[in-house]
Amino acid sequence: MFKIPAVWMRGGTSKCWVFEWDNLQVPGKSVDEVLLRLFGSPDHRQVDGVGGGTSTTSKAVILSRSLGEDADVDYTFAQVAIDEHKVDWGSNCGNCSAVVAPYAIERGWVEPGQESTSVRTLNTNTDQLILQKVPTPGGALQDPGTQLIPGVPFPGLPVGMGFLDPAGRTTGKLFPTGEPLDKVTFDGRQVPATLIDAGAPLIILDAASIGLTGHETAADIDSQAALLVHLDDVRRDAAVRMGLAASRAEAERAIPKLAIVATASPDDEADLVVRMLSMGRLHPALAITGSVALTMAAQHEGTVVRDLLATDPSSGLTMRTPAGIVQTWAEVRDGVPVVGTLRSARRIADAELLLPQTW
Amino acid sequence: MFKIPAVWMRGGTSKCWVFEWDNLQVPGKSVDEVLLRLFGSPDHRQVDGVGGGTSTTSKAVILSRSLGEDADVDYTFAQVAIDEHKVDWGSNCGNCSAVVAPYAIERGWVEPGQESTSVRTLNTNTDQLILQKVPTPGGALQDPGTQLIPGVPFPGLPVGMGFLDPAGRTTGKLFPTGEPLDKVTFDGRQVPATLIDAGAPLIILDAASIGLTGHETAADIDSQAALLVHLDDVRRDAAVRMGLAASRAEAERAIPKLAIVATASPDDEADLVVRMLSMGRLHPALAITGSVALTMAAQHEGTVVRDLLATDPSSGLTMRTPAGIVQTWAEVRDGVPVVGTLRSARRIADAELLLPQTW
Repeated sequence: MFKIPAVWMRGGTSKCWVFEWDNLQVPGKSVDEVLLRLFGSPDHRQVDGVGGGTSTTSKAVILSRSLGEDADVDYTFAQVAIDEHKVDWGSNCGNCSAVVAPYAIERGWVEPGQESTSVRTLNTNTDQLILQKVPTPGGALQDPGTQLIPGVPFPGLPVGMGFLDPAGRTTGKLFPTGEPLDKVTFDGRQVPATLIDAGAPLIILDAASIGLTGHETAADIDSQAALLVHLDDVRRDAAVRMGLAASRAEAERAIPKLAIVATASPDDEADLVVRMLSMGRLHPALAITGSVALTMAAQHEGTVVRDLLATDPSSGLTMRTPAGIVQTWAEVRDGVPVVGTLRSARRIADAELLLPQTW
Repeated sequence: MFKIPAVWMRGGTSKCWVFEWDNLQVPGKSVDEVLLRLFGSPDHRQVDGVGGGTSTTSKAVILSRSLGEDADVDYTFAQVAIDEHKVDWGSNCGNCSAVVAPYAIERGWVEPGQESTSVRTLNTNTDQLILQKVPTPGGALQDPGTQLIPGVPFPGLPVGMGFLDPAGRTTGKLFPTGEPLDKVTFDGRQVPATLIDAGAPLIILDAASIGLTGHETAADIDSQAALLVHLDDVRRDAAVRMGLAASRAEAERAIPKLAIVATASPDDEADLVVRMLSMGRLHPALAITGSVALTMAAQHEGTVVRDLLATDPSSGLTMRTPAGIVQTWAEVRDGVPVVGTLRSARRIADAELLLPQTW
């Protein structure tokens, strides 16, 4: 049998199996085939493999030292299907991204600093540079770290993730329509919207303008079929106006995403209240790319976000989401804008996965 | 941090983390505390640990070489709670039991034979000796084996599990009432029943005598509240008559279990049709201890099982369960009766689990 070295890490609210490319080379088999067999797919329980039978526990991150000048580590995210014979390489996972810096430091690929260590990572799925920063007091990673995040009852290492120069990576422009504020048609009415491309393309609507509060639960949203139709109309129109699709019909379901924002009350203990829609459903928290786009929007006069803020957004935002508080930070480093967020990560196990000689 | 060696194995339809006792000793912590933290409990997703967030993937097996004369390996099963701070040591798991022989052979605790290898295992939860037998052609375990079982889409090593002298281990007698056939009260009527103690205590009813066919689904059973009440009445009466409880009220929910049996038709491709009730619900297949008791019952004249059989039960039974066919074998070895069943097992990963220094 083959023995495949791998490390099991929690990244944010996901469990991720971390591999190095060289270790996934098996004669006569593609990397997809190797991952599927290791994870025990297809099988709804993945009972004969290392997958956990849910989308957040059937994930792989594959690393190598970077050959380019701009990054220390290149990483590729793979979503291993559970019931199907399929590996999806189409997107990055913000949660699993958080394992990259701790892994690279532990592996000796990056020399740790005496207080903290910065690791320049390149996500190959999206060609996005993410600057990760982990505390390393005395030149070592903490055990196990003290960072708590919503959805995980145990602490881990804090991993700051800074998206370098995130503006316009998909469309070429921060505001693809040329304006920080547009009008879009919602249920026959014109309502204000910000169409922005930072981290990923996003449409931002003011909750009040569409009859919502921003504090809606998943059940509140899911029970309003007409609302979901109107929001998808807005999304498809925006896809065309942002140059992401040639026609409404061709707009992809995943891009752009849509955020509904509202002024925070003192009870929210935040700068902004956010409900995000992804794939036609309320996101349980906030996609990391969405938090980047909202933070960039806050820094520009005239956007839907800026108009709702009572606080100074120049160094980042504190956002109230269904899962709790999500915090971002913003800075300019060597003249390049960086927008960052914080996740936590923990190494769960070092392993050798046993792959049958034939299957 | 502590590094705890462990092996992840599939045993039957479960995933089991396999430890050796010495490796679970951590200063200032109980084994329960160590297991809970390793598994990431309490947390309904077990996202920061090696547990899989379901009962069949939150299991541990802890091994040591046996100090006694009767066994090669002692093993203890632990069900690690998911949402609670609790480890249940009260019962054995027939699925996870199947990992013991392959582990012991791989570990060098037992010298492999040229065709097959027998490993004498002692389950310490139940004080039951189980003789396990695995093919080792040419003195080696196969990779990955070819045994398929219902519920697992990939093959593994076949592991024969023979329960040595299973009669009367709880009550001291194969038939605790002294008779192979009794009458019990079901819904005010007297119906025939076999009360047997082999592997574990079991009441066996003829499906036809209580208005069932033996082919019922979980939905069929769950929707009949009155039926479940009558069956629990039978169970509580039997607990008293078998000497397992002083009164009906004191009867435990888990013991005895109850099996409903029916004559097999040619379509069943089996000797017997079985529906088993465990903890007040239809079992998805058949508990391994239940299959042992049914096989022993079949070998005795006058029991409910024997009266339904058209085949010779002396070498074992083929039983149709909701999950498919379950097969048992029976033999006499050195004058001792052995009843066995077959599972499959596969080693999924060799690992070191990372336990934080403090938590």
